[in-house]
Amino acid sequence: MPNNPQILLDNRPVGEAVVSNFKLVEAPTPALQDGQVLVRHHYLSLDPYMRGRMNDSKSYAASQPLGEVMLGGTVGVVEESRHPKFQPGDQVVGMGGWQHYSVVDGNAPGMLRKVDTTHVPLSYYLGAVGMPGVTAWYGLVKIINPKAGETVVVSAATGAVGSAFAALAKARGCRVVGIAGGPEKCAYATNELGFDACIDYKVHSDLKSMSKALKEACPDGIDGYFENVGGYLLDAVLLRANAFARVAVCGMIAGYDGQPLPLQNPALILINRMKVEGFIVSEHMEVWPEALAELGGLVAQGKLRPRETVAQGLASAPEAFLGLLKGKNFGKQLVKLI
Amino acid sequence: MPNNPQILLDNRPVGEAVVSNFKLVEAPTPALQDGQVLVRHHYLSLDPYMRGRMNDSKSYAASQPLGEVMLGGTVGVVEESRHPKFQPGDQVVGMGGWQHYSVVDGNAPGMLRKVDTTHVPLSYYLGAVGMPGVTAWYGLVKIINPKAGETVVVSAATGAVGSAFAALAKARGCRVVGIAGGPEKCAYATNELGFDACIDYKVHSDLKSMSKALKEACPDGIDGYFENVGGYLLDAVLLRANAFARVAVCGMIAGYDGQPLPLQNPALILINRMKVEGFIVSEHMEVWPEALAELGGLVAQGKLRPRETVAQGLASAPEAFLGLLKGKNFGKQLVKLI
Repeated sequence: MPNNPQILLDNRPVGEAVVSNFKLVEAPTPALQDGQVLVRHHYLSLDPYMRGRMNDSKSYAASQPLGEVMLGGTVGVVEESRHPKFQPGDQVVGMGGWQHYSVVDGNAPGMLRKVDTTHVPLSYYLGAVGMPGVTAWYGLVKIINPKAGETVVVSAATGAVGSAFAALAKARGCRVVGIAGGPEKCAYATNELGFDACIDYKVHSDLKSMSKALKEACPDGIDGYFENVGGYLLDAVLLRANAFARVAVCGMIAGYDGQPLPLQNPALILINRMKVEGFIVSEHMEVWPEALAELGGLVAQGKLRPRETVAQGLASAPEAFLGLLKGKNFGKQLVKLI
Repeated sequence: MPNNPQILLDNRPVGEAVVSNFKLVEAPTPALQDGQVLVRHHYLSLDPYMRGRMNDSKSYAASQPLGEVMLGGTVGVVEESRHPKFQPGDQVVGMGGWQHYSVVDGNAPGMLRKVDTTHVPLSYYLGAVGMPGVTAWYGLVKIINPKAGETVVVSAATGAVGSAFAALAKARGCRVVGIAGGPEKCAYATNELGFDACIDYKVHSDLKSMSKALKEACPDGIDGYFENVGGYLLDAVLLRANAFARVAVCGMIAGYDGQPLPLQNPALILINRMKVEGFIVSEHMEVWPEALAELGGLVAQGKLRPRETVAQGLASAPEAFLGLLKGKNFGKQLVKLI
């Protein structure tokens, strides 16, 4: 069996996460038992939720154990199989973690899924047609549930979730407004992702300025908001929300390092009769088939072709991950292993 | 026609509302036109939402116009009628405002409703079997939607809404915990209103202390919260909320005078995958018949017999209203006119 380079969580961040929280090691790959499958990972997915798991505190996801391989989504190819459902050469998506190889129980439900790359590139199963895409779908369809003509807003607009959100919302006849960092990302959002407008939070870096920018970009007010960031963005959206507006709270990346992020005026939830709902997509597995079917269709039709930022080699994963937390990536952040 | 004493909104509060914001005047009662009904009011309802309407700012309810009769719920008796549906002597509930008499268009839908006092006292149609009762019903049934065995919490527990909430939640097999001000109200909540526990916010007047008290009163965590008050109470509830907890936001009386009331840690909405939803009961008229039927049944069975605080005479209304905003009332606050 091949040697298996892996990245462990070595120690927990104090405040901001740093490269020295991680440790690259090499381990043997165990021999397969009956029912097991050996997968060689081609891409690792890097996602903001991983930052929450690095803390020891209460979060929606279980804490990442110290000294174990960083958990995460992977796509790859079956190298060896002792399970009748999987053959060498099968392309699969799973939760293999930050390592070259994983050994997976072929019977465990949802742990390993064969995918078809005729119309969808393999790496997209970690992004637009994977967990981030379904995340966008759930927040838009199940929480915001927009009518055609309504205005919806998403923060971290050019990320994996934001880009899928835009395509799904346009397909429903919405006006879609993004919030992203920097002129390059904003131009990409409107030129390539289909956003009707995009607001640069680096230019509009306080509540008053952001609220004014939202007023201009959303002349009919805001009916739905998909929150990836938190902080003053949510405050600004509440000031521009229409009656019965819905907020899907998917992430609050601005607070992942432990800064307090109060909501300035929660009375607006009452005044606007709003619904603010937090969710985590892995708790809604029942929607995945429907969501993946729509997302795969949008990709196949060329309506959802977001960029990827690809770091090369396992050793680059920690730095690429920390860059993702600061918005340095452009679209879905991946690590290519092969 | 009789002379009609009335109370107008004379000027808007700057910060706290005061008696001099109101003005007692006397007006003639106009002669009835075809289709109109003259109602003599027996009781006026005083409700926290009226404070929001006194401001000029954006709120869920339209602003109360200056120089006009204070709007509000009333019960009374038809004195004269030029509408075939109403006869002198009929007992009716309506929105007659802070005055002795009102002239009502008998054809306007929902403006005047005949009520039966065989099993329900007339004044209860302004409280337990009126708008406050339906408010409790909507928040509990349509937003919190509890399962038997779940723990639900309500602030302003001994008020008109809180007392109805307790009876409705007990009928659904919930553990019901109240938050109220002072030992007398807390004893009344547990001894007479059916609360399983009641927390005195005057004893637990900061976040840490309230959070500890909630932990003791809610050993299995909090599944639903009905918010009438806002401020640190909501912060404390979020710290004790279970996964998938629901918060019905009905009022934030603590902020009505304009103090900023930030929510300290909105990330808990995400961490706990919560739903926080604001509502105003007058926008959900479709539930009123079902809600009123259940509430009337609970009253008739003796399971909902909340106290009332009754001020005597129209001139006492402003002071009684300001007392209500400070929690001086005990149960539903009314003004008796006859």
